[in-house]
Amino acid sequence: MTSQNRKVNRRVLLASRPVGAPTADNFKMDEQPIPKPGEGEVLLRTLYLSLDPYMRGRMSDAASYAAPTPLGSVMGGGTVAIVEVSNNSSFAVGDLVESYVGWQDYGISNGKELVKLKGVELKHPSYAVGVMGMPGFTAYQGLIDIGNPQPGETVVVAAATGAVGSVVGQVAKLKGCHVVGIAGGPEKCKYAVEKLGFDKCIDHKSDNLKQQLQDACPKGIDVYFENVGGKVFEAVFPLLNTKARVPVCGLISAYNATSINHSEIALAQFQGAILKKRMRVQGFIIFQDYFIFYDEFKKVMGKWVEDGKIFFKEDVVEGLENSQNAFIGLLEGKNFGKLVIHVGDV
Amino acid sequence: MTSQNRKVNRRVLLASRPVGAPTADNFKMDEQPIPKPGEGEVLLRTLYLSLDPYMRGRMSDAASYAAPTPLGSVMGGGTVAIVEVSNNSSFAVGDLVESYVGWQDYGISNGKELVKLKGVELKHPSYAVGVMGMPGFTAYQGLIDIGNPQPGETVVVAAATGAVGSVVGQVAKLKGCHVVGIAGGPEKCKYAVEKLGFDKCIDHKSDNLKQQLQDACPKGIDVYFENVGGKVFEAVFPLLNTKARVPVCGLISAYNATSINHSEIALAQFQGAILKKRMRVQGFIIFQDYFIFYDEFKKVMGKWVEDGKIFFKEDVVEGLENSQNAFIGLLEGKNFGKLVIHVGDV
Repeated sequence: MTSQNRKVNRRVLLASRPVGAPTADNFKMDEQPIPKPGEGEVLLRTLYLSLDPYMRGRMSDAASYAAPTPLGSVMGGGTVAIVEVSNNSSFAVGDLVESYVGWQDYGISNGKELVKLKGVELKHPSYAVGVMGMPGFTAYQGLIDIGNPQPGETVVVAAATGAVGSVVGQVAKLKGCHVVGIAGGPEKCKYAVEKLGFDKCIDHKSDNLKQQLQDACPKGIDVYFENVGGKVFEAVFPLLNTKARVPVCGLISAYNATSINHSEIALAQFQGAILKKRMRVQGFIIFQDYFIFYDEFKKVMGKWVEDGKIFFKEDVVEGLENSQNAFIGLLEGKNFGKLVIHVGDV
Repeated sequence: MTSQNRKVNRRVLLASRPVGAPTADNFKMDEQPIPKPGEGEVLLRTLYLSLDPYMRGRMSDAASYAAPTPLGSVMGGGTVAIVEVSNNSSFAVGDLVESYVGWQDYGISNGKELVKLKGVELKHPSYAVGVMGMPGFTAYQGLIDIGNPQPGETVVVAAATGAVGSVVGQVAKLKGCHVVGIAGGPEKCKYAVEKLGFDKCIDHKSDNLKQQLQDACPKGIDVYFENVGGKVFEAVFPLLNTKARVPVCGLISAYNATSINHSEIALAQFQGAILKKRMRVQGFIIFQDYFIFYDEFKKVMGKWVEDGKIFFKEDVVEGLENSQNAFIGLLEGKNFGKLVIHVGDV
């Protein structure tokens, strides 16, 4: 498969539904003519494609908050794109936009869901699908609104060097919290502490996760930003404090599961803890729940990024043709930093 | 054991900790001299004693939000009392007060936690530990603040004719909701619909609880006020809607359990539903979390009760000496309406 060549539209399609972890067979690439925009529409060419764990859910046909991707359809996904042709007076040729073209070189939009890049995003266009986009917004809003971190409290987040976790921890530090990350392997843990400024980071691949987490959280856990579930939650659970808040953003440990994972914690224990500890456990889907705060987020986060208060590491993979393998690795934690596919250039 | 006689202080003590359901052996009654109030204190004589499911937790020594009752100590509990002797200028002899004398005829207070009865409570003093007191406040505040019921939404509450459930359902009706109760037996269900105005009430002792609940909630469940847990929650769980709110007020089905109840729902399923349905599940302990709203509640609920918009049924048991058996029955659902012990007269 060639690189983006401005002659055809390369697309990555969902060929079959994964059983367990996705494999290369679940995807198929094809080439189509570049589509033509109609009245009021724009033609977009993809520069960056964001790969995110939630996409695993769309590959299944199980009921979820969003409809499954139909077999044979283009995989959906957030993108940074450039306007190539415009039949819409709100957009000029050459505008860079946050868009939802998905896993392909070209897409058509009526402009309604497009957000023009500005400020720090014009210097780092891929940030529009990273720290300044959905993942950053998820981290910020879920932490602030549901987590409500107070100075001196202990905040724990897993996938600590990922697109969401890295922002959660840094925002919590800016709010004056004791921040403990959980990540896979010593290199990521070192990075979380030395570069992101977390107070501690525990390697979930180590034998004694529970003990290490307890040692790192001598005053218990006030906010646990949940994006993993499974054994990480089992280590967190006994440490949750009275009035703890648990924003539930993702459960990546379960996404490839083929049967229900029976936890060592029974539902009755969890419910009992929610009652006795007066905890708040709340799921959220960022744009459905919080879209009205997106502008405000962009202002706050844009300033933090420009001032160097929030650092954001990207794991940039070259070429749409490598998106499938990159995504398979994402679900195994192989990426280091926000995974983004560099599809084309301005 | 005699009735309240104004010569001695009869007390009900915790004699031993229950294993499973409490039995009469776990309690012991004795008689002591009537205590004498010191400087700034008042002597209180109990008129009504409230019996509530939370008391089961205090009988155990397992960690919870409140310290366990020490063995040999008086069982704690909310009371309506009359001031017999006052060394405190804020209280006059003959004042009726909401108090925490516990399971005994007399108690001493420095006045700090006392709330004078007023309005509707002076006509029905026992309401101060019922619809106008802790149980009513629990129902009202948990439903309004965490449940946030909107007109047209479906609200489900179990123990539907109990002190809390009956108020939850009636307040939800006043908020324009479709209200479905769950109660034990046809008599209670009939009462919930005909007297309390619930739209439906399902008998949890029937074979097909799940199917009946589904039929009664054709648009799913938006608010589930949790005070039971166990098999009732299992029936509710699949019907919870996107953005459902679950105030967790109690889990009475588990209070007598001697081992962890393993639900047919795994923790991973519950967490997955919280995420996908963006649910909010939140425990609360009424006075710890919401005491600042108690005055406001008294105003709102007092008017509703006086206007006949909220109806409140009491199950009045005569005599402190019958409190132990009444409490054992409460945990089995034998009471019909708010259980209150009539201990003495004005």
